[in-house]
Amino acid sequence: MSTVATPADPEADPRVKAVFDDIRATRKTDFVNNLWRALAFDPALLERTWAEVKALMATPSALDPLTKELVYIAVSIANGCGYCVHSHTAAARAKGMTDAQHAELLAIVGLAAKTNHLATGLQVAVDPQFDRSASR
Amino acid sequence: MSTVATPADPEADPRVKAVFDDIRATRKTDFVNNLWRALAFDPALLERTWAEVKALMATPSALDPLTKELVYIAVSIANGCGYCVHSHTAAARAKGMTDAQHAELLAIVGLAAKTNHLATGLQVAVDPQFDRSASR
Amino acid sequence: MSTVATPADPEADPRVKAVFDDIRATRKTDFVNNLWRALAFDPALLERTWAEVKALMATPSALDPLTKELVYIAVSIANGCGYCVHSHTAAARAKGMTDAQHAELLAIVGLAAKTNHLATGLQVAVDPQFDRSASR
Amino acid sequence: MSTVATPADPEADPRVKAVFDDIRATRKTDFVNNLWRALAFDPALLERTWAEVKALMATPSALDPLTKELVYIAVSIANGCGYCVHSHTAAARAKGMTDAQHAELLAIVGLAAKTNHLATGLQVAVDPQFDRSASR
Amino acid sequence: MSTVATPADPEADPRVKAVFDDIRATRKTDFVNNLWRALAFDPALLERTWAEVKALMATPSALDPLTKELVYIAVSIANGCGYCVHSHTAAARAKGMTDAQHAELLAIVGLAAKTNHLATGLQVAVDPQFDRSASR
Amino acid sequence: MSTVATPADPEADPRVKAVFDDIRATRKTDFVNNLWRALAFDPALLERTWAEVKALMATPSALDPLTKELVYIAVSIANGCGYCVHSHTAAARAKGMTDAQHAELLAIVGLAAKTNHLATGLQVAVDPQFDRSASR
Repeated sequence: MSTVATPADPEADPRVKAVFDDIRATRKTDFVNNLWRALAFDPALLERTWAEVKALMATPSALDPLTKELVYIAVSIANGCGYCVHSHTAAARAKGMTDAQHAELLAIVGLAAKTNHLATGLQVAVDPQFDRSASR
Repeated sequence: MSTVATPADPEADPRVKAVFDDIRATRKTDFVNNLWRALAFDPALLERTWAEVKALMATPSALDPLTKELVYIAVSIANGCGYCVHSHTAAARAKGMTDAQHAELLAIVGLAAKTNHLATGLQVAVDPQFDRSASR
Repeated sequence: MSTVATPADPEADPRVKAVFDDIRATRKTDFVNNLWRALAFDPALLERTWAEVKALMATPSALDPLTKELVYIAVSIANGCGYCVHSHTAAARAKGMTDAQHAELLAIVGLAAKTNHLATGLQVAVDPQFDRSASR
Repeated sequence: MSTVATPADPEADPRVKAVFDDIRATRKTDFVNNLWRALAFDPALLERTWAEVKALMATPSALDPLTKELVYIAVSIANGCGYCVHSHTAAARAKGMTDAQHAELLAIVGLAAKTNHLATGLQVAVDPQFDRSASR
Repeated sequence: MSTVATPADPEADPRVKAVFDDIRATRKTDFVNNLWRALAFDPALLERTWAEVKALMATPSALDPLTKELVYIAVSIANGCGYCVHSHTAAARAKGMTDAQHAELLAIVGLAAKTNHLATGLQVAVDPQFDRSASR
Repeated sequence: MSTVATPADPEADPRVKAVFDDIRATRKTDFVNNLWRALAFDPALLERTWAEVKALMATPSALDPLTKELVYIAVSIANGCGYCVHSHTAAARAKGMTDAQHAELLAIVGLAAKTNHLATGLQVAVDPQFDRSASR
C-alpha cells in the first residue's frame, strides 16, 4: 500500500534513473529500497532527498558512519516510523553493528524515552548551568 | 516551576543523600541537576531511575560514552523534552563533543525527522529484504 | 485487526445506521470507511465523532475544503497515524489535490519536521516580537 | 506569551462570560485558568471545547474522576504539552491524588514509554491472539 | 517482520526460559507474546525489561491493576505504538475493562490529544497557581 | 537559554552575513529571528537550512503562501515545537491569516489529533480503497 502511484518502470524517467544509478553506485548494491521508489512519483523531491541523504550519510565527516546510523535509528524509533526503523537498522548492520550494540542502542533509546517522560511529567526547570547562550 | 514539591533540604532523607552522593562520585562533580532534585519527592523512584542511568550511561559497554550521549540527545529532541536536550547536550560536551560534531548531530536528527515524515506520508511498504525475523 | 469487536451488521443498530446514512449522503458515496465501522462499537462515540468531523470538514467556513484536508494530512503524518494519512490523502484527492500539490505538501511537512527538530535541539528562545498576548 | 491576543476583559463578551461562569460553577472555584482565557479569542471554539471537557471530565461515567485525570496527564506527558501536564496534575491533586499515586503514575508512564520505544525498535509483529475484530 | 533474529527455540537458553516461565506463572497463562520473544535476542535486556514490568504492573501498589493498564494504553496510543496498544488493550480486558470503559478511555485520550494540541497552538503560559515547587 | 554559543556579532562572519542579508531582503524586514542567530554557530548548517526554507516557503509554487504556512504551523504543533509555533503563526499573520482562520486552523489541528488518537487506539485496518500503489 502507498498513498502515491508509482510507475511500473520508474527508471523510464531519466531523472529517476540517474538517482537510482547513484544510489546503487554509492551503496555498492543493486537493491533500491521502496522509499526511493515511492519518491519517484515526484522526480524533483526524489533528487533533493537523495542529495541530502548522500551528503550527510555517505560522505566522511565529523561523526563515523555507524554512529550516524545509530542516531538515525534512534530518531526513527522516537518518531514512530516503522519503515525507517527497518531500513536504518539494516544500514547499521551493513556498517558493522553487532547484536550487542543493537541491544545497547535499544536499551538507551528506551531509557531516554523513560527519562524524557519523567522530566516532562515533573516539568523540571532547566538548570542555569546548562545554558551556553552567553558563553562566547 | 514543577509539578512536585521538593523539600528545601532533600538530603535530609538518607536514601536521597546516598543517591546524590553516588551521582557526585560517579560524575566527579558537586553539581546535582534539577531532574534528580525533583525525583527526590519519591526516594524509590529516584533510586531506580539513577541505578538504570548509571548502569547504562556510566559503565563501559559495547558503545562508547560519547555515542551513547548522542543517541540520548537524538531521542530527547524527537520526544520534545527541552530539559533532557539541555542536560544531555551538556553531558556530551563534557565527554568531548565538538561544535562540528554537534552541528552534524543536529543535521542528521533533522534529516531523519524529514525522511521519517516523508516515509509516513507516503506510507511506504517495508521491503522484505529488511526482515530479520527468519534469519536465524 | 482491531482492538474492538465490530458487529457483522453494524447498521442493525438504528443509531449506527443514521450516522452511516449521513456519511453517505454528505460524501455522496456508498463507501463507509473502516474508522466509522470500528467506532460503531460505541454508538455515542460514533455520533459525537462524526458530528464534529462533519461540522468542521464538510461545512463551508473560513478555510477552503482542500486546505483543511492538507492540514489534516500534515497533523496525521506528524502524529504517525498511518490510517489517517491514507484516509485524508484520499479525501484530499477527491477534493482536487494534484500530484504536484501532494509532493509540495510532503516537502513542506518534511521541512517543518526538520526545523522543528533543529529548533528543539538548539533550544532557541522565543523572540519577544512573536508575542501577541499584550496586543489588544 | 501567546500566539493570540486576549482581550483585557474577556467577560465583556456575554458568550465568554457564560462559559467562564459555568467553569467556576462546575469547579466550585473563582479561578479560571489561562487555557480558557486564551480560547476566549474565539468564543465559538471556547464554547465547544468547554462543552466537551465538561461532558467527559465533570460528569459521572464509567470511569471514576481520578482515573480520568490520570489518563489525561499520561496523554499530556506523551504529547509533550507542559501546560496540560501542569493543569491536569493540579486537577488530579484536587481530586485526591496522593504523592505515592503521582510517583507511581510517572513510573508507569516512563515504563510505557520505554516499552513503546522497544517495541517500535524491534518492529514486533502483533500476536493474532490480540485481534478482536472477528470476535463478535 | 522484525529487526532482530529470534531463535526458533528461544527457551533453549536457560536465562530466556526462566523469564518465560515467570511470565507464564505471573500471568497464569501459557501464552508468551511476541515482545518477549523478540527481546530474547538479548537475554540481559529481556531480564531487565520483564523485571521492571513485573514490579510495576503485576505487584499490588498505590493504583489498582486496571487503572495502571488504562494509563499504559493511553501512553501507547499517544506514542503511536500499535503493538503496545494491542497488547495492553488485551491486558486491560483480562483485568475487567468493559466496552463502556474502553469507549470512555478512547474518548478521554482523544480529548486530551485535542486540548494538548490547542494549548501548544496557543502557547498558553502556565498559571502560577499550578506551581508546586515552592510548596513544601 | 540555548544549547549553543552564539557570537555577540554573528555577522562578523561573511557567510553568516550573506544569509542574514538574504533573509532581510527576502522578507523585506530588518528582523532576523533567533533560530537563524542560533544556527549561526555552524555557517554551513545555517546556509543549507535557509536555502531550503527559501526555496520551499518563499518561492511561488503549487500551493499558495498562506496554505504553506498553515501546514507548517500544523506540523509544528503536532511535533510540540513551541518556538516554531510562534514563528510560523507570526509568518501566517504577515501573509494575511485572520483570527477566524487561526481559530479554524486550531480547531482542525485539534480534531485531527483526536481522530489520530482514536484510529491508533482502535488499530483500524486501512481500507483497500485507499491504496494507490497499483493505480498507474
